Amino acid sequence: MEQKVSKSVIRRLPIYLSYLKALPDDAPENISATTLATALCMGEVQVRKDLALVSDGGRPKVGYRRESLVADIEQFLGYDNTNDAVLIGAGKMGRALLGYSGFSEYGLNIVAAFDACDALLGTDESGKPILPMRDLGRLCAHRKILIGIITVPAAQAQTVCDELIANGIKAIWNFAPTHLDVPEGILVQNENMATSLAVLSKHLSAQIKNR
Amino acid sequence: MEQKVSKSVIRRLPIYLSYLKALPDDAPENISATTLATALCMGEVQVRKDLALVSDGGRPKVGYRRESLVADIEQFLGYDNTNDAVLIGAGKMGRALLGYSGFSEYGLNIVAAFDACDALLGTDESGKPILPMRDLGRLCAHRKILIGIITVPAAQAQTVCDELIANGIKAIWNFAPTHLDVPEGILVQNENMATSLAVLSKHLSAQIKNR
Repeated sequence: MEQKVSKSVIRRLPIYLSYLKALPDDAPENISATTLATALCMGEVQVRKDLALVSDGGRPKVGYRRESLVADIEQFLGYDNTNDAVLIGAGKMGRALLGYSGFSEYGLNIVAAFDACDALLGTDESGKPILPMRDLGRLCAHRKILIGIITVPAAQAQTVCDELIANGIKAIWNFAPTHLDVPEGILVQNENMATSLAVLSKHLSAQIKNR
Repeated sequence: MEQKVSKSVIRRLPIYLSYLKALPDDAPENISATTLATALCMGEVQVRKDLALVSDGGRPKVGYRRESLVADIEQFLGYDNTNDAVLIGAGKMGRALLGYSGFSEYGLNIVAAFDACDALLGTDESGKPILPMRDLGRLCAHRKILIGIITVPAAQAQTVCDELIANGIKAIWNFAPTHLDVPEGILVQNENMATSLAVLSKHLSAQIKNR
């Protein structure tokens, strides 16, 4: 049984997961929705519903076996199947993501980066290849890549997005600070650091004015 | 006049800004809300309202002078005042952010990183210092730092958050995949890459099942 699950549930699950995985080895074997809700300052009813969606291992008054719950959430999120991804734009941000080993924990493996600038081609520090754009189609087809990460400047992002979709990409992780137009069935997840910085900066200027 | 402005407006402004700044030098001198709305696939009424909030330079049938509009948005967002920040957690993600020069465009300057692990102390590739945690208070007080960036593992994030607030930090940019408890008046901006990855991964597994 796979129900239609809202994005907000999917966004909360990694928070439960990281809490559960960070517990020390000698923590109690079972954990209840109540304990989890209290620890994470979240609503108990919400946590209970979320967990019931992904696991049928909950027992009244006992809770969930911690280990099974971790496995159930990981399976639900697809972390047990590694997703290969390509990254376009090997500037500073792109190379930072390319070299970040932490994504493997979430089932993401960046296979290669691509860039239009010849000077950047070769391999990065972590040994991953930075390839010319003309190799994109062949690699995507050969490795059946479904995730594309965009780290080019805003002005080039739509062109790159179109090229990714033309090469079979179904989900786009967009770090360019711009809106992307995509056909139905393609997911765009925006990671707009510029907007985050704007929120921070605006909060501070409001605070300073109110002093 | 400074009105109370919603977070969603503040999140859209950097999108206008990056579009305007990416236009070629020989683009028309004036730009209308309609043109901007069409280019970014956004509602015209919304764009018109947003721009009117930050600039009084709009003229009927003519629009805004592009250059003045860029300056007005930047001033509104506080990008013309550089905000100094400290970063806690000099692992891969932390060092990637520390070395990323692109933030300066948004008025963010990461002054130094801090880490509890002695082996990471020194300077990073870009020449920025990685300091021991005991130096945090002195540096924050001396440079009057108001922004803290958290790139430690989830299990350490709350402790680090409390320490930042104790040292006068008013706005926190949180990259740790966990909820942070903060007193009123402190802003937390979550940049949860784990949740983004969960959304991507879930979208793909649903797609594959529906084939």
